[in-house]
Amino acid sequence: MTRTLTPNSPLPTVVPAQLPEERAAYPLDAMALAPALLGRPDWRLVSRAHHPTPTTIPLGGGVVLGGPQVLLMAGPCAVENEDQLMAVAQAVSAAGATVLRGGAFKPRTSPYSFQGLLTQGLKFLDEARSRFGLRIVTEALDAESLAAVAEVADLIQIGARNMQNFSLLSAAGATKKPVLLKRGLAATIDEWLYAAEYIMAAGSPYVALAERGIRTFEPRTRNTLDLAAVPLLRALTHLPVVVDPSHATGERALVPALSRAAVAVGADALIVEVHPNPREALSDGPQSLTLGGFEALVRSLGPVAASVDRML
Amino acid sequence: MTRTLTPNSPLPTVVPAQLPEERAAYPLDAMALAPALLGRPDWRLVSRAHHPTPTTIPLGGGVVLGGPQVLLMAGPCAVENEDQLMAVAQAVSAAGATVLRGGAFKPRTSPYSFQGLLTQGLKFLDEARSRFGLRIVTEALDAESLAAVAEVADLIQIGARNMQNFSLLSAAGATKKPVLLKRGLAATIDEWLYAAEYIMAAGSPYVALAERGIRTFEPRTRNTLDLAAVPLLRALTHLPVVVDPSHATGERALVPALSRAAVAVGADALIVEVHPNPREALSDGPQSLTLGGFEALVRSLGPVAASVDRML
Amino acid sequence: MTRTLTPNSPLPTVVPAQLPEERAAYPLDAMALAPALLGRPDWRLVSRAHHPTPTTIPLGGGVVLGGPQVLLMAGPCAVENEDQLMAVAQAVSAAGATVLRGGAFKPRTSPYSFQGLLTQGLKFLDEARSRFGLRIVTEALDAESLAAVAEVADLIQIGARNMQNFSLLSAAGATKKPVLLKRGLAATIDEWLYAAEYIMAAGSPYVALAERGIRTFEPRTRNTLDLAAVPLLRALTHLPVVVDPSHATGERALVPALSRAAVAVGADALIVEVHPNPREALSDGPQSLTLGGFEALVRSLGPVAASVDRML
Amino acid sequence: MTRTLTPNSPLPTVVPAQLPEERAAYPLDAMALAPALLGRPDWRLVSRAHHPTPTTIPLGGGVVLGGPQVLLMAGPCAVENEDQLMAVAQAVSAAGATVLRGGAFKPRTSPYSFQGLLTQGLKFLDEARSRFGLRIVTEALDAESLAAVAEVADLIQIGARNMQNFSLLSAAGATKKPVLLKRGLAATIDEWLYAAEYIMAAGSPYVALAERGIRTFEPRTRNTLDLAAVPLLRALTHLPVVVDPSHATGERALVPALSRAAVAVGADALIVEVHPNPREALSDGPQSLTLGGFEALVRSLGPVAASVDRML
Repeated sequence: MTRTLTPNSPLPTVVPAQLPEERAAYPLDAMALAPALLGRPDWRLVSRAHHPTPTTIPLGGGVVLGGPQVLLMAGPCAVENEDQLMAVAQAVSAAGATVLRGGAFKPRTSPYSFQGLLTQGLKFLDEARSRFGLRIVTEALDAESLAAVAEVADLIQIGARNMQNFSLLSAAGATKKPVLLKRGLAATIDEWLYAAEYIMAAGSPYVALAERGIRTFEPRTRNTLDLAAVPLLRALTHLPVVVDPSHATGERALVPALSRAAVAVGADALIVEVHPNPREALSDGPQSLTLGGFEALVRSLGPVAASVDRML
Repeated sequence: MTRTLTPNSPLPTVVPAQLPEERAAYPLDAMALAPALLGRPDWRLVSRAHHPTPTTIPLGGGVVLGGPQVLLMAGPCAVENEDQLMAVAQAVSAAGATVLRGGAFKPRTSPYSFQGLLTQGLKFLDEARSRFGLRIVTEALDAESLAAVAEVADLIQIGARNMQNFSLLSAAGATKKPVLLKRGLAATIDEWLYAAEYIMAAGSPYVALAERGIRTFEPRTRNTLDLAAVPLLRALTHLPVVVDPSHATGERALVPALSRAAVAVGADALIVEVHPNPREALSDGPQSLTLGGFEALVRSLGPVAASVDRML
Repeated sequence: MTRTLTPNSPLPTVVPAQLPEERAAYPLDAMALAPALLGRPDWRLVSRAHHPTPTTIPLGGGVVLGGPQVLLMAGPCAVENEDQLMAVAQAVSAAGATVLRGGAFKPRTSPYSFQGLLTQGLKFLDEARSRFGLRIVTEALDAESLAAVAEVADLIQIGARNMQNFSLLSAAGATKKPVLLKRGLAATIDEWLYAAEYIMAAGSPYVALAERGIRTFEPRTRNTLDLAAVPLLRALTHLPVVVDPSHATGERALVPALSRAAVAVGADALIVEVHPNPREALSDGPQSLTLGGFEALVRSLGPVAASVDRML
Repeated sequence: MTRTLTPNSPLPTVVPAQLPEERAAYPLDAMALAPALLGRPDWRLVSRAHHPTPTTIPLGGGVVLGGPQVLLMAGPCAVENEDQLMAVAQAVSAAGATVLRGGAFKPRTSPYSFQGLLTQGLKFLDEARSRFGLRIVTEALDAESLAAVAEVADLIQIGARNMQNFSLLSAAGATKKPVLLKRGLAATIDEWLYAAEYIMAAGSPYVALAERGIRTFEPRTRNTLDLAAVPLLRALTHLPVVVDPSHATGERALVPALSRAAVAVGADALIVEVHPNPREALSDGPQSLTLGGFEALVRSLGPVAASVDRML
């Protein structure tokens, strides 16, 4: 994964991005891509034009993001207490998840909402890793929480509201650890890739991009999941792509179908909210799957992954 | 398909819509749906609350929309001449499509753009049906073209720009023929279902809904395909749902991946633009698949359909 | 107002549109406009590049749209009965309105909502004109209602949902009468001008454009009023521009401030909903001003108009 | 300006927000506001329900934001060098501006774009204040730059991309200094007010809200200026409202008309980009007024302000 370009290198000639052809089962149309699919000259580190091979991100414990296996990242919106986290960790691990999600530091619209268990939440995540062999993804909100998160997380999440918090992006990149960059609420794909460029320019070779729905006029879903972003990113960048159907819809009943769609469209991982008792969740209950719901979802995903030459 | 409710019936008590449970492979979460999934009291004809069984639409020739088979509707954006149409019809039929699309009357942003071959285009479509055994879907723009279209089409298309042309909706419904109602550029799902209600209230029991992308801020795709609409519509209505990945993206390289996603999310049909020589198409060339591209797409779709217990 | 270009004329060389400089009080920046303000080559009739002088539209009775006077168009959303209409007509006329609005044919999201008084409503509008000397603007929904509307209306309204109903646009243009073209819910300014081009290409030299808010993610207002459209249209086209603050906000309490903004930004007219008893209105009650509210609004508008060298 | 509520106070009963009636010239409709205008129960500090009197913010030097005078804040997008800043400061001061804007720390989409002069830029701003008697508004990007900015700025700007950077909001509030909070690219008004609540809950009694356009589908302007936000905020909060027509449109030719609209709609201040030579600006040249353009704009604003009982 050596990179010959640094932020200070001269800009290379722009060449059109190519859609991936590595999956022989789906030979994509060989015609030249439309201008809309061309890359940007100063995506020096994220662009597929400059780094044609897909990046794979080792998360430790043999778990790899961006390879043939579609990873399942699952867990509660927020770490609420030890019992809740261990119950979810045990269940999602048994169902096939390899990465545990859970917020210790929570960005909340209102200053009076539950803000997370903070460092205590990180301790529970660390314990869950030991007990269940799961890798950990959790969010850093600022320079302070980043230092604490970086000690525990295998994958540091930068949330949608911080996608253009450029100082945080640079600080996250400087940890050299893998970073999961969520798309901003109304970020264009180009802005999102520039944000990833900030992280890589600061030192981390390992950035994954999480599509989590964009803000539109439709009131029946919390956001609108933009699955076209997945093949588009595949053409523009070598970085892995993750899909979050929970935040995208805000409604658990829609999560299974969109998860299957995300796998079929080519996502490298799903990140799904799961709670032992969604009705009592401190945040995002309506979009959290139950433990049984997650298990049923995973069972349905295997054949879909196989149908696009991937595995769970 | 008898209906006990008419537009003049007293409004029934609203009951929460239920997500479909008929596909045993995917038992959906049994918890009560969030309020956002409740129906509207005056969707008297389209609501699943009042008509729980999914509607299937016979298009003739044994082709059924809304059954276990995922239909492939394919063809050029516009019927340009006899050779073009027959070449596409032959190829898409051979590849597995059962419905031929092609515009004879074209709604165009500019009055100076090619407006279609009009009735001559309908004649070519009729001929293609005879020669290749395909069913025909084509658009009616107004009362005049509706009369002509209704004589030839097995499925009358109402385009996105006419989704709230209430007079046309009623006239289309009065033909009693199957109608394919495309979602408006910025229509909410509720407005879309009200538009379908207009058609049904005017007499047609057979309406299918086509998701074709909504207008958002993202400039890299022509529209943003809202695949969450598919399971959401499944909960709200008994009508079949079709997905149009061509208009949704405006870019042929993105069509295959989104087609697979659409099948995985539960669409009853795809409607895809195909052209023998996209570079010379009179409209929408950049989003049209080549003949070979369509064939390759279909091959990739079979396993995906099977993975969600459907077939092509 | 002769036009030397017809739809079949050769396309002229594109020249950059110029912002209006006729109001000496506001010398606009003389620097070249950004590329985003250039016109389209096939806006042959609507473009200011081809017809630099602003168009004024005589509505009869000495009322002129597009001149130094900012017109006030006011009235109920729907004509509900004779008493309601005459009460509003009398009040708005006394307050300074010169054009009466009121829908006889109503486009409604649901087929079971009040659809208007139809031709009876037109009769009441005709009567109000006679009694109060007001000019009439009312909406045509389709070819049928257009014929009836064209006999009564001084200004034929094409609604937002029909902005790309190209058959209706052409039919309205063929009447040769003045047409008020509302912007579609999610129409770009370019699409809107192409729609106006359809009307002009069909024969009407008199088209006015009504900004009525666009659909966005913000839930606190019904739409988002795009007042930048007013100076932008001034640069791109010679046609008059009207602003509808009622549909833009959906909330009467916001109408006065936005009306003042619309006058200050350079609108040629306001079209405002007024009802004698908004709580009992058959449609759009929450956004209708009371009779007293309209009178107070007009009083506040005079100084604003004067401040930008216009008059009421 | 004493506040009896703190974040830990029990929540008061929600009462409907009232539109301001203090400007007798414009008696607003006395009917009860629609439910959409009700406040949120946990806007304990920002809500007008709890603090009915409008807040005025003393910026020092006798300059007050939120009083009868509409403030003019003007200056370059970025402080580029001493000469540029002093030339702008002298010109805008002479034209009537009382607050100088200029970015020393610049949030840029690309990591390779000019990031500002940093602390050197702050020194130039400080010097401009001494020489021209202007108050200073400049942006803080993170905890580090906040400390430096707070020493120089009379009004600390939090940019649109940081509107939900909750750590930065709290840190800005903890300085107890006046804060200008720009609306996020796709932030709802409710989210914006919650962000202001974070600042106030951390200790600053002085927050002003800057509407700078929201992201929509319209490509001809950089953003869509939401002027309805101004009267809506007036109903919901006691905080002053500022309008930024430069970022809203991205096009200098549109800035004058929208500035007049902003004053007419009730804004307490304008913040406008001005550059001595926009063609050579290091950022946002196309939207910057020239020195002469700004002077002409100010001349046109006086009568508009007077027409709504304000003054410049």
